[in-house]
Amino acid sequence: MLTVARNTLLALATFLVPFGFGQDTATPKSGPQYTADSRLKFPGKFREWIFLTSGIDMSYSPMSGMADHSMFDNVFVNPEAYKAFVETGTWPDKTMLVLETRGAQTKGSINHSGHYQDSEVMGMEVHVKDEARFPGKWAFFDFENTVSGNLVPAGAACYSCHAEHAAVDTTFVQFYPTLLPIAQAKGTLSPAYLKETTTPPAK
Amino acid sequence: MLTVARNTLLALATFLVPFGFGQDTATPKSGPQYTADSRLKFPGKFREWIFLTSGIDMSYSPMSGMADHSMFDNVFVNPEAYKAFVETGTWPDKTMLVLETRGAQTKGSINHSGHYQDSEVMGMEVHVKDEARFPGKWAFFDFENTVSGNLVPAGAACYSCHAEHAAVDTTFVQFYPTLLPIAQAKGTLSPAYLKETTTPPAK
Repeated sequence: MLTVARNTLLALATFLVPFGFGQDTATPKSGPQYTADSRLKFPGKFREWIFLTSGIDMSYSPMSGMADHSMFDNVFVNPEAYKAFVETGTWPDKTMLVLETRGAQTKGSINHSGHYQDSEVMGMEVHVKDEARFPGKWAFFDFENTVSGNLVPAGAACYSCHAEHAAVDTTFVQFYPTLLPIAQAKGTLSPAYLKETTTPPAK
Repeated sequence: MLTVARNTLLALATFLVPFGFGQDTATPKSGPQYTADSRLKFPGKFREWIFLTSGIDMSYSPMSGMADHSMFDNVFVNPEAYKAFVETGTWPDKTMLVLETRGAQTKGSINHSGHYQDSEVMGMEVHVKDEARFPGKWAFFDFENTVSGNLVPAGAACYSCHAEHAAVDTTFVQFYPTLLPIAQAKGTLSPAYLKETTTPPAK
């Protein structure tokens, strides 16, 4: 019986490791890990995490324009953080949100219109919640390779924009269609977001 | 020791069930399940499966046009099938590919351009590989609710289009950017797809 239980456990663990789940749930493998010089290690299995949404050519600036080049943004979150959000409506410590930017194509194989995603990864950013590590609890990291990413300085515009406009805990849950209803039901929408969505635009 | 092993196993199983992984790997919970009248049961946890890609307004017909209404398509696959594809370059029995269609919005919150996904699910189709059940090994099911889906008859155009143009085993892996390189490396691209991609267009 002991052998059966152990073998089942080992088989299960072997099956799960490729998906980023570790045997030791106290230190989940999908949480943030850092290099000795405080860079964020590339989360190699993020494409096997939970998908939150995909957008194309989104811009928060009224002046932007990218008429000649389209890009998709895919957002993933580590499974432990997703599970906590579903239960509570907000993010736990050690949350990692990955924004992957990919090229968009129109003509290819039998496709004639619209856009599909191609194999060119054009960028990656990670938003990490690590309460003991960052004074504002969250930090952004920008990746130029698949080894480690640069910490974005605390004064950068992304921090203030997320603080001022994000629906939940400095994250843009308003653009994550399966999570927004959970936050609404749990009452975790930020005061700033609630004010923005209920106040009519200035004349 | 037996108690420790059993408790660890139970704790792990409790943690995993929300993500669609079952304790009994011989009958994975993410495989297809049918009603008594041969409809496919709705895979309720598909948003927690592996994301393959997202497209917008894609069309395989040169004549199509949807200028006044945009939609995203998100594709997910059950984790067991994904794991097998990564290892072999093709799909195992009991593969389920889910195509979720969602509304696309432009103006909302602080977004000004491009498109993001909204909460309106406009349709869902599932492509199932069940070798013992379907004469062609694969079948399509169309969902109009979140209970069960209708089998698409074998003579429908989707079957012949997938057979004639799909990159791997009647599936459009040419539009799944992380899987296409695996199929290329494993040599599992279909003869029809290889011919299509190497033959110059007729003059």
